[in-house]
Amino acid sequence: VDDGERLGLEDSEVVKKFPKIPSMPISADTADTIFRSLEGARVPHEWRDTLKAKVGRVGPGPTMLNFTYQGENKMATIHNVFAVIRGSEEPDRFVLLGNHRDAWTYGAVDPNSGTAALLDIARRYALLMRLGWNPRRTIILCSWDAEEFGMIGSTEWVEQNLVNLGSKAVAYLNVDCAVQGPGLFAGATPQLDDLLVEVTKKVKDPDSEDMTVYEKWTTTNKGISIQRLGGVDSDFAPFLQHAGVPSIDLYYGRDFPVYHTAFDSYNWMTTYGDPLFQRHMAVAGIWGLLALHLANDPIVPLNYLTYTAELQEYTKVLSNLLEGSVTLRPIIASIQQLAAAAKEAEEEVKKLKEQENVGDLLVLKKRILNDRLMFAERGFLDAEGLQGKQWFKHLVYGPSSDLESKLVFFPGIIDAISRSKRTNKTEGQAAIQHEIWRVARAIQRAAYALKGELT
Amino acid sequence: VDDGERLGLEDSEVVKKFPKIPSMPISADTADTIFRSLEGARVPHEWRDTLKAKVGRVGPGPTMLNFTYQGENKMATIHNVFAVIRGSEEPDRFVLLGNHRDAWTYGAVDPNSGTAALLDIARRYALLMRLGWNPRRTIILCSWDAEEFGMIGSTEWVEQNLVNLGSKAVAYLNVDCAVQGPGLFAGATPQLDDLLVEVTKKVKDPDSEDMTVYEKWTTTNKGISIQRLGGVDSDFAPFLQHAGVPSIDLYYGRDFPVYHTAFDSYNWMTTYGDPLFQRHMAVAGIWGLLALHLANDPIVPLNYLTYTAELQEYTKVLSNLLEGSVTLRPIIASIQQLAAAAKEAEEEVKKLKEQENVGDLLVLKKRILNDRLMFAERGFLDAEGLQGKQWFKHLVYGPSSDLESKLVFFPGIIDAISRSKRTNKTEGQAAIQHEIWRVARAIQRAAYALKGELT
Repeated sequence: VDDGERLGLEDSEVVKKFPKIPSMPISADTADTIFRSLEGARVPHEWRDTLKAKVGRVGPGPTMLNFTYQGENKMATIHNVFAVIRGSEEPDRFVLLGNHRDAWTYGAVDPNSGTAALLDIARRYALLMRLGWNPRRTIILCSWDAEEFGMIGSTEWVEQNLVNLGSKAVAYLNVDCAVQGPGLFAGATPQLDDLLVEVTKKVKDPDSEDMTVYEKWTTTNKGISIQRLGGVDSDFAPFLQHAGVPSIDLYYGRDFPVYHTAFDSYNWMTTYGDPLFQRHMAVAGIWGLLALHLANDPIVPLNYLTYTAELQEYTKVLSNLLEGSVTLRPIIASIQQLAAAAKEAEEEVKKLKEQENVGDLLVLKKRILNDRLMFAERGFLDAEGLQGKQWFKHLVYGPSSDLESKLVFFPGIIDAISRSKRTNKTEGQAAIQHEIWRVARAIQRAAYALKGELT
Repeated sequence: VDDGERLGLEDSEVVKKFPKIPSMPISADTADTIFRSLEGARVPHEWRDTLKAKVGRVGPGPTMLNFTYQGENKMATIHNVFAVIRGSEEPDRFVLLGNHRDAWTYGAVDPNSGTAALLDIARRYALLMRLGWNPRRTIILCSWDAEEFGMIGSTEWVEQNLVNLGSKAVAYLNVDCAVQGPGLFAGATPQLDDLLVEVTKKVKDPDSEDMTVYEKWTTTNKGISIQRLGGVDSDFAPFLQHAGVPSIDLYYGRDFPVYHTAFDSYNWMTTYGDPLFQRHMAVAGIWGLLALHLANDPIVPLNYLTYTAELQEYTKVLSNLLEGSVTLRPIIASIQQLAAAAKEAEEEVKKLKEQENVGDLLVLKKRILNDRLMFAERGFLDAEGLQGKQWFKHLVYGPSSDLESKLVFFPGIIDAISRSKRTNKTEGQAAIQHEIWRVARAIQRAAYALKGELT
């Protein structure tokens, strides 16, 4: 942005973003030394296994720790970098692959493992293009800056391009810490589940002979295990939670011990993370194939029957948390509408696939059906957003304020349930019921968008 | 809505919508009698011409007026009625014609004159359809309920269909009080100006021999006079100000004296308003032709060069209201971006019109260009909306809180200027500058949407 509205370092909007308590990651050894020198209450049970000293205490005193924090309070310019492969037939439909480029320290895992995979995809696509290939839709490789600084790079870009993304983005595929160790982990909005599963069947597993990623993944998890994207962990958040773009997030391994420390280095990667870089190759394979299908398939591979099934699961979990006269009936009714629209769309997809690709009308028919599949996710957005966190417009996936809740869906309802414990019963139940209605209307909007017809 | 969230008559959300002071329109004769019996301060200057008594006073006392108000506080069901002519090639693109059906009293003008015109358009389209015609895009005739009760009919429907309207509505054409007297009045978002002008050249003027509506209209006004749609006067408000759909509002005559009284009757219409119903015919002609072009033209007739010129005019007017260090530079820069995008789009329209209509790629090219023309207006929407009136998302046209302001554009800036008179100078100017930035970003979003490319 060459010439935008600027805030100064002293503006209250800026000042409030900076924490008042400095923090620094330290090694377990250092922590152990500190804890052993402290008195007072014992460390919590959860910490004891990872600390050597079984009897560590958390103070206060008697040790005084001299902590020197050297921070720079300065203006800096950030740079998002894009590579665009223009679609030959529908250049105005966008499939985006994104990964951040800024790192806290060396960042061999976070984010360079993802950046390496992105660069390898660019190399592979370039090979295809030399053979004369061009995608049907536009593919955009995004290298975000300032992810670690509050996802500023991707968020500002999504906000600036909101109309074009809202009307033209088919999907956003995110990879952050591509390789943290063994085993595939994947998160997705549910209409992308089928595509994700199919693609894992086409990529060789990096850690086994003669197995596909799919075989290893489903064996390890005793079935298909796909996470949901309610967290605000990486650059998929603005795409999904603000703009309503179907999204995927991929990585190998999880909870790697050197996260955000100076030990996240090439040395760690070649020693522990991925000595032969096969896991990097697997991520690049899955990621690149996902984008190829989304950019090339005449009918975009988005299946809302899966979404419907997932939403039904949520109502089952939720029903155990409700009491009194609060009812999930509105949500159940709107899921039925979405199911009917999804079934109808599936049949239309089948019919269109059977027809031969000729004639002006058929070209438009495919485009029209693709539009419906693309826009359905936008229905989950609500102009008023989540209560108290209005920027988050998605009522199915977004951050809950209840940090103890393990539920990753319907954050507005989860929050209303938490708040109800601190208010009188009638008011609390009315607030929960209102949030249930809001979610029901969002699902209904998705159903209308998928159906493509006005009421 | 069969099964929606319902508020009760006692809910605070409902109670606060009802005025606490009852009101009733009365004739000038009755008002005159009352004023002549009062003492106290004299009536304001503005009233004196319309009152017979030149020396009327406004009280208090000594007269006591016995005012009996009989209201029903009850739940009622409202009905929007739609007629749909499905588009043959792009059924998922909507051109909407709307008029409300509910009236305060007899409603011969408000709204039946509009309803009569709408019904005549339906009759004319039916004749065309019997000849085998079908529009390229879908035409929807909308008969709204509960307009007089806060535009509830259209507003609820727009909210419920927000995703489909946002992604598929080409334009909304409103007629409320179609005939109030002589002379055409028209309001439009500026990208529709050219089409409106062209259509008035094709319709016979109802009040002159051998003149078109265009000739009479431009002679009367010494040029083309098109109003803007910043008011919240009729059902175009939710379409334009909440959903960002390009809109038009049409009527013959204005400020008719029997507005919202029991004298708005068929007798008044045949005696004063339109004795031979030619003005009704003219409105139906203009309205119906506008929709035909929007639904049939291979390239949708939306011209953003006109919008650019209009926005430039606004900055000139606004510059006289600003002082100190406040600058319009951000808006001027973004208007330049919109101008460049509009120029580019115009050239592409010309090129595409010259090509013959064959081939899959050309079909898609037209659709893609039409999408850009349709989506550009959505760019003016802002997720946070107008300050204190968040439902109003359009930053160019919407209601200002400054009731004395005659300006019908940039309501957020106008409001900030009003507020600045009651705060300290530095804060006031910073607030105005911030609103200027918000408008600049909105215009930039429109430019990006029209260009159709990501930044």
